[in-house]
Amino acid sequence: MTKLILLRHGQSQWNLENRFTGWWDVGLTEQGAAEAQAAGKTLLAEGIELDQVFTSVQARAIKTANMALGMMRQAWVPMTKDWRLNERHYGGLTGLNKAETEAKHGKEQVLQWRRSFDVPPPPMEAGSEFDLSQDRRYRGIAIPAAESLKDTIARVLPYFEAEIVPMLRKGKTVMIVAHGNSLRALVKHLSGISDTDILHEEIPTGKPMLYELDSDLKAISRRYL
Amino acid sequence: MTKLILLRHGQSQWNLENRFTGWWDVGLTEQGAAEAQAAGKTLLAEGIELDQVFTSVQARAIKTANMALGMMRQAWVPMTKDWRLNERHYGGLTGLNKAETEAKHGKEQVLQWRRSFDVPPPPMEAGSEFDLSQDRRYRGIAIPAAESLKDTIARVLPYFEAEIVPMLRKGKTVMIVAHGNSLRALVKHLSGISDTDILHEEIPTGKPMLYELDSDLKAISRRYL
Repeated sequence: MTKLILLRHGQSQWNLENRFTGWWDVGLTEQGAAEAQAAGKTLLAEGIELDQVFTSVQARAIKTANMALGMMRQAWVPMTKDWRLNERHYGGLTGLNKAETEAKHGKEQVLQWRRSFDVPPPPMEAGSEFDLSQDRRYRGIAIPAAESLKDTIARVLPYFEAEIVPMLRKGKTVMIVAHGNSLRALVKHLSGISDTDILHEEIPTGKPMLYELDSDLKAISRRYL
Repeated sequence: MTKLILLRHGQSQWNLENRFTGWWDVGLTEQGAAEAQAAGKTLLAEGIELDQVFTSVQARAIKTANMALGMMRQAWVPMTKDWRLNERHYGGLTGLNKAETEAKHGKEQVLQWRRSFDVPPPPMEAGSEFDLSQDRRYRGIAIPAAESLKDTIARVLPYFEAEIVPMLRKGKTVMIVAHGNSLRALVKHLSGISDTDILHEEIPTGKPMLYELDSDLKAISRRYL
């Protein structure tokens, strides 16, 4: 039986302020840091022995991974950081809170985006302060203008298949520390959740989710630790 | 011109207590954590843009690297952790402070060890609380019983040549976050320091050392930032 742990980063400043964050790099709040440490404590108490960690290139996920590993006394475990585990790119909504989004785009439109699997938000505006096209970490990468959940899945799953599945097939215990929507992509895939139902799957910050997988990597069980 | 940054971990609890630490995993003191953050601040102010970080599998170095990267807002930079960048293995001296070492082995012997390039300390005693043979991170690795500085160099340099030099040849900016003696190995090599003189090269905790290298990876300059 192979173990796979999914962990959403601890609460970020913009989780707290209810702003669309996406690819923007926002730090953890004090509560978020405490959540990351608590996650590590839980994983240590469960006797989880990691072989490999994967995370995004976003600071809130990396910091969560580092803090959890520190608490587990497994800071030495190899960690791979890849943009394909990033949060969904919220395009022109980046930085807006709920009220601002409704004021700008109308309640109906916002509801439609929220309920949609494959409709992307409006693209990032040219000259936006949240434009990442000059960010060194994305050099050589076609940064999306905006992503639907479907778009997010379309870059998370090929990465999962190419880089993570081979390790799971060898029986390695892997932890993926990522974001609400990149983790939704994995949960949808592993647990066979429909396009509609996945929109209602809320993954809480800082709570490790344990998948137990059989030798075909079918999910035997999934639960929060 | 290629840049290589060497950074010794921040002060550890056993640095403070003047104990031989070697491969034992000892945490940073508050001062050590502050040193790591200050190092990151300095590197940020110098405009250093890292392409790759290398560190040991020891928590004090990894934590220093993570904290420095966080301050630099470069947490996303790939980081490779390898035991060959570990501190010198102090064998049977592990855990002893200066007074205990002299009481156990005599002042003369201790002085001889301190002045020697190629005489290892006594081996780790069987059943020692500091024995790492059951530590999962060293599975498949022939853990030394004790290392002289010469022994340390003999595993640091082949790793440097195999994994780090190819990146430097491509012009990548690399930071190595490691330990007093694994960094001595690199400084000896890069700056052509003799077996005797290298014993007197004290590398302070948490102070980034910048090497500027020419296209043959010859050191043009080295200085603390």
